[in-house]
Amino acid sequence: MTTGKQLFTTLESDGTLTVEIAESTFPAPTGNQVLVQMEAAPINPSDLAILTGAADFENAEYSPGKVIAKMPEPFNTGSKSRHGQRLPAGNEGAGTVIATGDSDMAKALMGQRVACVPGNAFSQYAIAEATMCLPLGEHSSEVGASSFVNPMTALGFVENAKMDGQKAILHTVGASNLGLMLNRICQEDGIALVNIVRKAEQAELLKSQGAEWVVNSSDDDFMDQLRKAIDATDAFYGFDPIGGGQAVDACFKAMEQVAMSKMTEYSRYGSDQAKRMFIYGRLDFGPTILTPSYGFGWTLSGWLLTPFLANAGMETVVRMRTRVLENLTTTFASSYKTKVNLEEMLTKNAILDYRQMKTGEKYLVVPNG
Amino acid sequence: MTTGKQLFTTLESDGTLTVEIAESTFPAPTGNQVLVQMEAAPINPSDLAILTGAADFENAEYSPGKVIAKMPEPFNTGSKSRHGQRLPAGNEGAGTVIATGDSDMAKALMGQRVACVPGNAFSQYAIAEATMCLPLGEHSSEVGASSFVNPMTALGFVENAKMDGQKAILHTVGASNLGLMLNRICQEDGIALVNIVRKAEQAELLKSQGAEWVVNSSDDDFMDQLRKAIDATDAFYGFDPIGGGQAVDACFKAMEQVAMSKMTEYSRYGSDQAKRMFIYGRLDFGPTILTPSYGFGWTLSGWLLTPFLANAGMETVVRMRTRVLENLTTTFASSYKTKVNLEEMLTKNAILDYRQMKTGEKYLVVPNG
Repeated sequence: MTTGKQLFTTLESDGTLTVEIAESTFPAPTGNQVLVQMEAAPINPSDLAILTGAADFENAEYSPGKVIAKMPEPFNTGSKSRHGQRLPAGNEGAGTVIATGDSDMAKALMGQRVACVPGNAFSQYAIAEATMCLPLGEHSSEVGASSFVNPMTALGFVENAKMDGQKAILHTVGASNLGLMLNRICQEDGIALVNIVRKAEQAELLKSQGAEWVVNSSDDDFMDQLRKAIDATDAFYGFDPIGGGQAVDACFKAMEQVAMSKMTEYSRYGSDQAKRMFIYGRLDFGPTILTPSYGFGWTLSGWLLTPFLANAGMETVVRMRTRVLENLTTTFASSYKTKVNLEEMLTKNAILDYRQMKTGEKYLVVPNG
Repeated sequence: MTTGKQLFTTLESDGTLTVEIAESTFPAPTGNQVLVQMEAAPINPSDLAILTGAADFENAEYSPGKVIAKMPEPFNTGSKSRHGQRLPAGNEGAGTVIATGDSDMAKALMGQRVACVPGNAFSQYAIAEATMCLPLGEHSSEVGASSFVNPMTALGFVENAKMDGQKAILHTVGASNLGLMLNRICQEDGIALVNIVRKAEQAELLKSQGAEWVVNSSDDDFMDQLRKAIDATDAFYGFDPIGGGQAVDACFKAMEQVAMSKMTEYSRYGSDQAKRMFIYGRLDFGPTILTPSYGFGWTLSGWLLTPFLANAGMETVVRMRTRVLENLTTTFASSYKTKVNLEEMLTKNAILDYRQMKTGEKYLVVPNG
């Protein structure tokens, strides 16, 4: 048994959210498990869903290693299924394997630095599956900490597009960490990418990294820019991490308008052009608004990495992971605004900053720092 | 050349919608075409999109065989691609073939009463494709007038569900003409059907026709009824003709709550249960509202008959049409509130009545009546 500090998040049925660092014991790993001493773990948007959600951290009660906040409605009722459960957090991270189960695969990782996906990465120790561990070789834990969620998601978009016979992708948050990665992958793979950004400096950043199609949603002629980019690339297939509001709606509209402009005859049902969008995040907790302005030839789905990988099959997953490892400091490099230890992670300044999920301002947690 | 009266609908860029009966000439049919003297044509919701849309018919200008109404925003701008075009209307109908093209298939239909899908069925004559004509034998044109849109759509839902490995379907407007048809098909094919209705008498009607699962959205415990029905049937797959508002949202919510209730472990991403809804109509012109309360395992698409049939292939289409013809007065029977000729169709009383698309109050147009 190993003992160490770990983060827990608990939402009570009355809407009280407690996030705290507590002592925890970790059993000896068995079978194909390994015990990892965690050295670095990023705070991803997907972690924030469980870590902070929509709770009020402006008016929360802060003490060392602990914060108590109120979860407003309808989010508290919407989270009913987690009420009363003390949950770990932190999808991914990197560290050193200090004990292993009996399997050959697990034993081969003993003493190695690995990236892993334990689900409790905000912790000094974590039990991880050997099959999901990526040996980092000479790379540091900081370099390897974000080698799963963003790289595999961005690669997953491109894999998914190729499976569906697409030659172009639209991405509604072009300048995010994941967006910049996607921009590099698409250039390597010859996939056209239409990037939507909100600010001129984000457009500059993407263009400086070779992006050909960048449209700014803050510009007056945004829809016109978007139609031109879709027309030039045939990007009728896109990914959106915002979720709420009309980001997806604007994309469907522009896609349909491009398709309609190519039709020779009017159809009350809209164009025959299939339009496909995926929502893969919830930067905006508001409802998704879809207006009746693009006929019936559209499909909108939620998109998650785990079911995509399960569906893609082990061969594809291994090929993707190999590509990530071979390009960890180039195509798949992540950057961080700052490093915090577990206690610093729960201070008011830190929470109010990282929960904004600002472009280029990701936090890295160093649980043993 | 044959001359006869035909309905035309024209929307100008300033939002003026003119619907009028005018003399039209019909060329001699060629190749695989036939010329049909139209005897009966239903006013389907899919016809109303082009016939009345969201225009203001309370304050329209009525004269014999003509009505001029204003199309409000955003619907006028949303219909930009039809501005200035004089369009025929009427998807389907039935009548007698009075001339044919040279092909053997066309010639074989000479003198026969057929159901057809000409796109200008609100007309005394129409050119139709022989491949899409269904010889009605002893059936009257009134019996055969609605043998395409509703029967093939309802059958299409069941075919689509079977292709996707589903054993149950949810339908959000259970007591519509199409809904009652779907209820009969599902009973014949052993597919469980969850019907949503708005009124107690609609629930009674469906139950009197053997429906097992009917839930009333006007009841206080609607969501509870819906969850119970989904739980009992595994209906994670549904069709919605409303489009606007939160009908689809309620279905996804109930589906996810049923799936979550069966999970042993909490997941921040929701259940693994795939949830699928299709919007196949626009009874409500408002935006579709999707709340972030059912994770990422959902897909929403538009659904239209024509692309479905094209995708299903000719063999399936022939099988479906044969089934419709063999059961035209039973499974696929339609009923009408009243009959109108072309001029009566454009009176204020008629338009304000049929545009409401009330359950069981469909109009039949008799263009030569």
